Amino acid sequence: MATSVNLVADIGESFGPYEIGQDEQLLDYLSSANVACGFHGGDPVIMDRTVRLCAEKGVAVGAHPGFQDRRNFGRVTIELPPEQLFADTLYQIGALRAFTDRYGTTIHHVAPHGRLGNLTAVDPRYAEPVFEAIHAFDPHVRVSATGGSVLGELAVAAGHELVATGLPDRGYDPDGHLTNRRNPGALVTDPAQIVARAITMIEDGYVIAVDGSTRVPVPSGTILIHGDKPWALPAAKLLKAALAERGMEIRAL
Amino acid sequence: MATSVNLVADIGESFGPYEIGQDEQLLDYLSSANVACGFHGGDPVIMDRTVRLCAEKGVAVGAHPGFQDRRNFGRVTIELPPEQLFADTLYQIGALRAFTDRYGTTIHHVAPHGRLGNLTAVDPRYAEPVFEAIHAFDPHVRVSATGGSVLGELAVAAGHELVATGLPDRGYDPDGHLTNRRNPGALVTDPAQIVARAITMIEDGYVIAVDGSTRVPVPSGTILIHGDKPWALPAAKLLKAALAERGMEIRAL
Amino acid sequence: MATSVNLVADIGESFGPYEIGQDEQLLDYLSSANVACGFHGGDPVIMDRTVRLCAEKGVAVGAHPGFQDRRNFGRVTIELPPEQLFADTLYQIGALRAFTDRYGTTIHHVAPHGRLGNLTAVDPRYAEPVFEAIHAFDPHVRVSATGGSVLGELAVAAGHELVATGLPDRGYDPDGHLTNRRNPGALVTDPAQIVARAITMIEDGYVIAVDGSTRVPVPSGTILIHGDKPWALPAAKLLKAALAERGMEIRAL
Amino acid sequence: MATSVNLVADIGESFGPYEIGQDEQLLDYLSSANVACGFHGGDPVIMDRTVRLCAEKGVAVGAHPGFQDRRNFGRVTIELPPEQLFADTLYQIGALRAFTDRYGTTIHHVAPHGRLGNLTAVDPRYAEPVFEAIHAFDPHVRVSATGGSVLGELAVAAGHELVATGLPDRGYDPDGHLTNRRNPGALVTDPAQIVARAITMIEDGYVIAVDGSTRVPVPSGTILIHGDKPWALPAAKLLKAALAERGMEIRAL
Repeated sequence: MATSVNLVADIGESFGPYEIGQDEQLLDYLSSANVACGFHGGDPVIMDRTVRLCAEKGVAVGAHPGFQDRRNFGRVTIELPPEQLFADTLYQIGALRAFTDRYGTTIHHVAPHGRLGNLTAVDPRYAEPVFEAIHAFDPHVRVSATGGSVLGELAVAAGHELVATGLPDRGYDPDGHLTNRRNPGALVTDPAQIVARAITMIEDGYVIAVDGSTRVPVPSGTILIHGDKPWALPAAKLLKAALAERGMEIRAL
Repeated sequence: MATSVNLVADIGESFGPYEIGQDEQLLDYLSSANVACGFHGGDPVIMDRTVRLCAEKGVAVGAHPGFQDRRNFGRVTIELPPEQLFADTLYQIGALRAFTDRYGTTIHHVAPHGRLGNLTAVDPRYAEPVFEAIHAFDPHVRVSATGGSVLGELAVAAGHELVATGLPDRGYDPDGHLTNRRNPGALVTDPAQIVARAITMIEDGYVIAVDGSTRVPVPSGTILIHGDKPWALPAAKLLKAALAERGMEIRAL
Repeated sequence: MATSVNLVADIGESFGPYEIGQDEQLLDYLSSANVACGFHGGDPVIMDRTVRLCAEKGVAVGAHPGFQDRRNFGRVTIELPPEQLFADTLYQIGALRAFTDRYGTTIHHVAPHGRLGNLTAVDPRYAEPVFEAIHAFDPHVRVSATGGSVLGELAVAAGHELVATGLPDRGYDPDGHLTNRRNPGALVTDPAQIVARAITMIEDGYVIAVDGSTRVPVPSGTILIHGDKPWALPAAKLLKAALAERGMEIRAL
Repeated sequence: MATSVNLVADIGESFGPYEIGQDEQLLDYLSSANVACGFHGGDPVIMDRTVRLCAEKGVAVGAHPGFQDRRNFGRVTIELPPEQLFADTLYQIGALRAFTDRYGTTIHHVAPHGRLGNLTAVDPRYAEPVFEAIHAFDPHVRVSATGGSVLGELAVAAGHELVATGLPDRGYDPDGHLTNRRNPGALVTDPAQIVARAITMIEDGYVIAVDGSTRVPVPSGTILIHGDKPWALPAAKLLKAALAERGMEIRAL
């Protein structure tokens, strides 16, 4: 039985005057964070502040590269050629490292964002160049991907540790994929329900599919809360308490 | 008497389908290069290609951060607050380092681009945050600045080596500043004349002011050619030959 | 004694997933609106929605062009050449008109945004090209400017009607300029106080300077509330009620 | 037998300091032009200059909206939602009209650019919102599309005149589609060959497919030369001469 859980959220996604998320408060509950790198969200000033906060609060920093498309928040497909996927990913991770270096911390993992993350799970045309960039950056860095995904298989084959993550605020289809955001049940918005799902993931390793038909096996060592949502902060608080009751720690990998 | 000169040019300033400069050919004559970092020019794909070419040809890579303003090529003043100047500079250098790491080379120096470079020479509101970013990145990296400039004084005081540079294709005012690009004589476009001025800089340490009034002392160890200009390539060829005749090498610092 | 006031706010400044302001509710209290044109804020989808809402609610649409700098929300100086100031202004107004045409309304006025607005008030290098763009667009369109400003004088000389505006949520220096946003008293955040200042502007034509030293004459026919602030909506509600008590209407020019 | 041909090219695709094409010279040979609107290429200053040149030389101005992606020149698919395709298209055409109004000319036609153009030909998810934007802008404006394309059918059904265009510098597949740019034969680069193909299109209404297998019927009233290519200018000169020999004029619709 695990004695700790890695609690992670996407943060640092504000942009200039435009604020998304309640990063500073949320960081009090996290053990690691996916930090936007200025392409789909974030900008250098926000990256500096976000990494400083992570360092101060002992939260491990993950790079969160995405499509260069703030207007769609990295959530629509752009059919980029492989050299652009490769170079854009490497650029973003490198830029973030300048800030982790500054604050005496490191890149704990790399987690592709949004649609880029979805595509690297299923399509080698995206998974291969993104993987090559991650591996070129650091052949030992952790990769946020599930074991069955294309990116996950490439990473494992090259000796990277995976950060396999359960998403208790997202619906799952019976086949294990996340329910498309346009479909009903795609988002779970009630903090108590999110926490109940998280606990089932952590203790029993599954979640009930969105159609109620089946138990979907889900990774349990890392639990992600979407930091741009209003339920992120209450869900994180509740989850911390629920884990404390069970004698479990929130701790990075 | 010096036996070598560091010949440098701004390169990697193309953007997507838009080409500026003849980088690949010009690199055959350079010992170091100022490589755009994706803000005023360049993009990750071009940075990857440019750094690879530098590594293949033994050309030292300098980071060339600028204002985030492709449309004006980093050549107009933007009155950014210090935290933005700091973070944008650090972001750009960090992004470039991901590519120098990939190709087994390093950041040889940092040279602020265009208007940002001009402002760091004379205005502490720009020089201080840019210097802090350079120093935060690497307290030992070379800084492209003249001894009398604000940036140069900050860098020297903190123990950085300066890359003091003569610009033979630019006019100089009698006070030693570069002639404003809108004024006559700001650009010297004849390759033979550029080379003659470069040789006078290298051998005698001065250039004749744009109004003919005086000899302006000019740094001579590093000579810069503007890589986006049509005269860059012929001037570089001629200069290499002229230096060879004098038994001098083109070599990075 | 005036029987109506034109109540205006900056709206449509959200961007993709990034929301600023409570436009839909605020529009219930306005007679006209400054609609962002996609450079400092807004994007085409948001412009379409904003203009549709204005048309549905009978709110007159003003064009609100700004510097092309979302990250600083058009609030820092960019030293653009005149042809760029001209063309960027004309482009933005033209783009907005495609949406006013669609919804059967018109461009009621043009109000330069943020720092661009500040600069056109005092500096002919900004006022002239911006004015030329407004005049080229429509030689009869209203211009949001005060009579003493450079832009205002150019507009009046060419026969444009001015939309001279009082800003009750902003401090005024004794010389009549808005207090710099970095100084104390620059923003008035209490809705009741904002409304009291607005009523004094409307009924008596002045506001007390930020240092309490003097009464500053302020235009009174149009009152602006900053739509991106949390006090915008409560202040607009209170102001509507206070005007109703006095038998005054909220009505565009 | 036709006595005139409408010769068109994509122009105005430079961006800030980055030049593409030889617009000024090319305009001497054209009767109409597809003018970039600042999303995939062009910027407001360049639009102003381009429309002025068109007006001076009597060249009809077409709006050339594209994906908002300069880095890929509007040549990769972005899976935008319909409201964004609609609003972005309307925004671009509206912005261009501000410049045609200024120079006393009009929007002669609308021609979607690059990948957006390709997608509107075959996919209703792109064709419908783009068509709606064109139709909302002006229910009588000409639409650049072939009769069999999705966009073309929508436009014809709503009473728009089509600008059906032959592309003599592009290979055609046997099914009538343009050969993918990554495949051999996609581009014809020899000016004499381009002109020969154009004349066959104009006089006989066909082109030989890229694999030599068949005659592909091709529209002949409008001939497009890609203005960003080095062969554009020599091909336009040769074509003008070849048409003059045949007693045919180059004239807009």
